[in-house]
Amino acid sequence: MLSLKVIKKLKKIVGKEYISVHQEDLLSYSYDATQVTSLPEAVVFPGSTQEISAIMKLANQYQFPVLPRGAGSGMSGGAVPIKGGVVLTMSRLNRILEIDERNMYVWVEPGVVTGDLQEAVAKKGLFYPPDPASLAFSTIGGNVAECAGGARAVKYGVTKDYVMALEVVLPTGKIIHTGHKTIKGVTGYNLTPLFIGSEGTLGIFTKILLRLLPLPPAKATLLLGLPQLELLPHLLNKFLRFPEPLTAIEFIDDLCIQCVENHFQLGLPAVEGLLLLEVDGSEKVVEIIVQQVLDMVKTSGVKVIELAWAEKAKKLWEVRRAISPAVFQLGSKKSSHDIVVPRAQILNMVKKIQALRQDYGLPVLCFGHIGDGNLHVNIMYDETEEVKAQTVTEKVIKAALILGGTISGEHGIGLTKARFLSWEINQPTLKLMQQLKQALDPNNILNPGKIFLE
Amino acid sequence: MLSLKVIKKLKKIVGKEYISVHQEDLLSYSYDATQVTSLPEAVVFPGSTQEISAIMKLANQYQFPVLPRGAGSGMSGGAVPIKGGVVLTMSRLNRILEIDERNMYVWVEPGVVTGDLQEAVAKKGLFYPPDPASLAFSTIGGNVAECAGGARAVKYGVTKDYVMALEVVLPTGKIIHTGHKTIKGVTGYNLTPLFIGSEGTLGIFTKILLRLLPLPPAKATLLLGLPQLELLPHLLNKFLRFPEPLTAIEFIDDLCIQCVENHFQLGLPAVEGLLLLEVDGSEKVVEIIVQQVLDMVKTSGVKVIELAWAEKAKKLWEVRRAISPAVFQLGSKKSSHDIVVPRAQILNMVKKIQALRQDYGLPVLCFGHIGDGNLHVNIMYDETEEVKAQTVTEKVIKAALILGGTISGEHGIGLTKARFLSWEINQPTLKLMQQLKQALDPNNILNPGKIFLE
Repeated sequence: MLSLKVIKKLKKIVGKEYISVHQEDLLSYSYDATQVTSLPEAVVFPGSTQEISAIMKLANQYQFPVLPRGAGSGMSGGAVPIKGGVVLTMSRLNRILEIDERNMYVWVEPGVVTGDLQEAVAKKGLFYPPDPASLAFSTIGGNVAECAGGARAVKYGVTKDYVMALEVVLPTGKIIHTGHKTIKGVTGYNLTPLFIGSEGTLGIFTKILLRLLPLPPAKATLLLGLPQLELLPHLLNKFLRFPEPLTAIEFIDDLCIQCVENHFQLGLPAVEGLLLLEVDGSEKVVEIIVQQVLDMVKTSGVKVIELAWAEKAKKLWEVRRAISPAVFQLGSKKSSHDIVVPRAQILNMVKKIQALRQDYGLPVLCFGHIGDGNLHVNIMYDETEEVKAQTVTEKVIKAALILGGTISGEHGIGLTKARFLSWEINQPTLKLMQQLKQALDPNNILNPGKIFLE
Repeated sequence: MLSLKVIKKLKKIVGKEYISVHQEDLLSYSYDATQVTSLPEAVVFPGSTQEISAIMKLANQYQFPVLPRGAGSGMSGGAVPIKGGVVLTMSRLNRILEIDERNMYVWVEPGVVTGDLQEAVAKKGLFYPPDPASLAFSTIGGNVAECAGGARAVKYGVTKDYVMALEVVLPTGKIIHTGHKTIKGVTGYNLTPLFIGSEGTLGIFTKILLRLLPLPPAKATLLLGLPQLELLPHLLNKFLRFPEPLTAIEFIDDLCIQCVENHFQLGLPAVEGLLLLEVDGSEKVVEIIVQQVLDMVKTSGVKVIELAWAEKAKKLWEVRRAISPAVFQLGSKKSSHDIVVPRAQILNMVKKIQALRQDYGLPVLCFGHIGDGNLHVNIMYDETEEVKAQTVTEKVIKAALILGGTISGEHGIGLTKARFLSWEINQPTLKLMQQLKQALDPNNILNPGKIFLE
């Protein structure tokens, strides 16, 4: 329990208008995009690095948990305050501090919404590529904390590939500066990536330096229909061997197609799966790559359902984004997974998922970023089927691991995947991770109870 | 001093033919590419992960230093055994374990020569992009330990962008496995990058998983002459804004041109600097980019000295590689630096270097990877000019830092840059780095005395 004395000290640090202990506020900060909730004891809205540092020092002195929070859109319970304590909301640290056009980088505070950042830099002809599905509301701080991915990762990589430097408040309250304002740099240990994807357990980012690229002037999107799933490995292998990479290679399975079709009546053909491809770059180069795709699929029995350029392509992506809401036709509850397999194993993974449907009589569907081997698997069920859904979850995770994969590509471990972590990572390696947590956060103040089972 | 008992135990671990205490062997492992030397007390040639683990346990028990060594081609003293002890030579761990063509990755042991790896994967149509100038003799293990760069980093990044997973023997002898066999993966802390560039101080890599790309089918190289250095910022900015990236953007200054010209009589025109550009990809796309370069330079007064395709381009790169030996015309000793500045600051950095020539009467020259802001600065001097060379060194380092840069882009800190590290990195951040070293290597066994001043 936070004592009145601590609350008073917190008020002194941030100002009394920037802390709340009202029940309705505590409720608003008790959840993320999972179904897990837990109330914090106070919500604090810090306004500076120094305030955050002072809060962390106080937390160590009085031994209360602190949990940094972006938009609360996380998919693994990372932002749920399961140990109570203080939620630190980054909403006031939401400025784009400096767009350096010549050096192609941007300094941002963690509370900037990713989509807003993309628009701001696009106005200067610059491009921040990572595109998590949540980009309209998730924040850069949260994206860095989870190492968010997205569809464009095939060509452009994920969040970690764009973070050049960080200002971090350590769990002890010390302020450090990692990384460089330069593209290269090998001075001392590379601390930046240790914080990226650390799910709010190792430090609180207060300034983030992101690398930018030139904004691609042209874009095309292709929607392909697969008459048989067996075409997948051949197609994927060919696409990945193009000398100029495709930007995105997304897969949509038969059940997802049904759901989207029920919802939108798009008149999609009867196929075993869809592939949504994106290509970007200069106009001439985009044309060359699109032609290469068309030449390739001509001989393979694949249907070209649509080829859209520029703005029109957005329509096709709406189909892709409609999947997540549309699947609730198949069950009132969803167990959502984010496994990755080596890319040559995609067909085996999809077949395994389809076998699980048969074996357990539950709608298990998949879609996602197969260009990276990353599949979002949704197990749909009703309240009475909780146990069955749990069994299928375990089978999905095990299948991914047997195929040489990993249990999470983008969403992180947080709470909901913690019990599977030791299925993938061996004891000495887990031990080292916990040793690092211990070295940085000796009193276990920052986002306790996450990633590692207690 | 290593006791006879320890030597005996080492022999038992690796077999008596794989350890030497002969003076000529100790001499052979006493140096790297810097001018610093120090004798080890024994050289050991381990044959497996288990042997290395056993050696590390022994080292902790008997408190002797251990230093892992690749080809000894490092540029900052990282492989010099300044505390004596045991040099662990990775030459027996030199197998390419598995090239997975479908998943486009390769498992290698650390002792594989980088160039050999590139040839082996090229035979399968695959490409390992990082190209340090030492690639004909440096090893992958050393490249990972230093996070080696190279000219192609503009398009392809550096070593860290290709390491997917590591098997690491920790300083305590424990064996861990970091990373994933998949492109994405966010399970637990991202340990892999902590070891990359850790200069043999945090762990010994025994297996390395590297991501591969499709081998680009076409390539072109352009040699451009700059009538005035003042054209640099404009050109660089334009090149970096191309929608399809150039592969390499190298700069060669006037003094380097003189040296190369004296050596080879190539008939290079009288210019203030040269730019060497590389473009790769499919044939059509390479043609488009080359045309874009030609269109751009047409209006800017830049001379196109040569445009070479495919094999012919190798000749142009010979000019670039000839710089390092050719500069010894200007002085018998070389103080070599590897600074990086934000890319828009390149001209300011080059001007600063030229001013130092005037101010101190020493030949100070520069060349290198300006597409990344990374300049190799060579201060040439004779034995009597040691103090002056030292002063110029400090001025070069300070200038890079004042321009927002970093003291090393590729070569690491090791011994020779250790005293400058605190000029760049603040105390709390350095402290955290040392805390991590302490957590992983409590007895300070692995490559002691490097990176951090004692």
